[in-house]
Amino acid sequence: MLETLRWKNDQLEMIDQRVLPNQFNYLSFHSAIEVAEAIRSMVVRGAPAIGCAAAYGIALEAKKNSHLDKPDFLAALEEGWQILSKSRPTAVNLFWALKRMRQAWNTVSATYSYQIAHALLEEAHRILQEDICNNRKMGALGAELLKDGAHVLTYCNAGALATAGHGTALGVIRSAIWAGKRISVISAETRPFLQGARLTAWELNQDQIPVTLITDNMIGHLISKGEVDAIIVGADRVAANGDVANKIGTYMVAVLAKRHNIPFYVASPCSTFDLDILEGNLIPIEERPIEEIANLDEYQWSLGKIKMRHFAFDVTPRDLITAIITEKGIIHQLTQENIFKLIAQ
Amino acid sequence: MLETLRWKNDQLEMIDQRVLPNQFNYLSFHSAIEVAEAIRSMVVRGAPAIGCAAAYGIALEAKKNSHLDKPDFLAALEEGWQILSKSRPTAVNLFWALKRMRQAWNTVSATYSYQIAHALLEEAHRILQEDICNNRKMGALGAELLKDGAHVLTYCNAGALATAGHGTALGVIRSAIWAGKRISVISAETRPFLQGARLTAWELNQDQIPVTLITDNMIGHLISKGEVDAIIVGADRVAANGDVANKIGTYMVAVLAKRHNIPFYVASPCSTFDLDILEGNLIPIEERPIEEIANLDEYQWSLGKIKMRHFAFDVTPRDLITAIITEKGIIHQLTQENIFKLIAQ
Repeated sequence: MLETLRWKNDQLEMIDQRVLPNQFNYLSFHSAIEVAEAIRSMVVRGAPAIGCAAAYGIALEAKKNSHLDKPDFLAALEEGWQILSKSRPTAVNLFWALKRMRQAWNTVSATYSYQIAHALLEEAHRILQEDICNNRKMGALGAELLKDGAHVLTYCNAGALATAGHGTALGVIRSAIWAGKRISVISAETRPFLQGARLTAWELNQDQIPVTLITDNMIGHLISKGEVDAIIVGADRVAANGDVANKIGTYMVAVLAKRHNIPFYVASPCSTFDLDILEGNLIPIEERPIEEIANLDEYQWSLGKIKMRHFAFDVTPRDLITAIITEKGIIHQLTQENIFKLIAQ
Repeated sequence: MLETLRWKNDQLEMIDQRVLPNQFNYLSFHSAIEVAEAIRSMVVRGAPAIGCAAAYGIALEAKKNSHLDKPDFLAALEEGWQILSKSRPTAVNLFWALKRMRQAWNTVSATYSYQIAHALLEEAHRILQEDICNNRKMGALGAELLKDGAHVLTYCNAGALATAGHGTALGVIRSAIWAGKRISVISAETRPFLQGARLTAWELNQDQIPVTLITDNMIGHLISKGEVDAIIVGADRVAANGDVANKIGTYMVAVLAKRHNIPFYVASPCSTFDLDILEGNLIPIEERPIEEIANLDEYQWSLGKIKMRHFAFDVTPRDLITAIITEKGIIHQLTQENIFKLIAQ
């Protein structure tokens, strides 16, 4: 199985997702600030993977400072926590994981810093393992929704690379294939970071799952030609009413799906739900550097003096979503009541 | 005024649109086969500009062979005509211009080849001049539709660079600005050839028209945030019922416009109407090399072994189009009857 993040030689290693598929290599991380920078610069991306990375960021900071007195140690943790919390604003798994890590250090009964550090590393390992388990559960549940022979369109990368393993949206596709269904995938390239072209196509190709790559603006044409049977995407934050923030462009895919009566599924673990946010338009939407729009590495195709906007996410209202697949079950009718019933328990 | 094509030193010169905005230079052409290759490789693109280029392709072929006997001369013209007709399949202006050139050589009363060649060059000049005039007329008519202060989204490049000058969609915007309206433009980059990022943004910037560049998948977000007041695009072929083939992705923009009740205008000269094609799904849609999806120049970001599709156009059904602006008038209600009444007369 592809390990997006791994604990090795007493440090965190993560696949450098900025250079895939041309290069496949792991980078090492030793502190909260290093992990925060990796999240910000998209060495690691995808809501669940960001959550796992942040958890290890705290664990690394604890390990690094475990020789300190408890007050100094806790101050260092607090500082690392603050830095990590400011790395990216939209994916709620970051805050969910940080909250869990804080709970861990608040509740552990330990005399010495190194004991707390040990407990925090255990908690990070647990978060990673739970993520994989949850993806497997979502996969098994969601696989039922995909028909044998289906052409399934996915957007961005909600795969193993966006999680600790198996994936959310791609996890459902993987599980459907394990269940014996013949599924072929259409991957939209997902500008500007090209997660679909660089990550999803690569990841599926590694598993020998049939994949066809298109540009984002071809989705409407393919749907109108009847070449898409279902759509499945991940999520960066789900509001209490079922609105979903996900990679920029998801909204347009959902609107097209609605016009053509194609099921539009979201695969999202409970950790991606934010029950404190009542509806999607209250979710903070990250704006990223405009250089990411105008360049690819050294290659620049737009004049520097042109004004640009770079929104990293958009919001898909619940009325466009056929169902949300979670590890606890599938929510077909997206109401606040149904969501609370499943998620808050 | 920006001259996309020009006749200079007894040869055709065209701006090399593959290298804008990083380089601005003209290339020279001397035969039908050279012009056909320029159309195929997108040195020149945009339906009206392709029509003008094809007309000059015939004129160049005539000039090159004007020393031949009339039968050999006409055979050379025929061969050039066939080569040009196979350069690209979707934009109907190519076939419209070629038909006009054939009519010109069929109807001219001339004894010698060089006289026919002269008449064909005159006809090419007329096609170019008419294109500019028609764009100015469309501009003046269409300008009425844009409100002072409007944020207008355009897609691909339907500007001076897509025509002999002034532009179709951007011509309407230019004319509105000349009429004293404050218009700001949102340009979607338009993958994979990046006509929006490389051509529209550059062209508007040259004219100091405010422009903001986004990726194609941000259109839905901006529309949903109320940041788009109107949409205007060009066309590659309009069917007899009012369905419009245009750059891939246009359909998705029109679907989003409909959902948010934003006017969606098409600016299209009569030469882009194909009254022989009853509806949009009968329009041939070009598929182009997949390398254009996976690379930008030398820079490659997708694995070569991944399957890809590259559709160059899609079809927007007439029910999504608020009005089509032509040089003869604006068609608000898109019916075959209204279209024939205006265009066929």
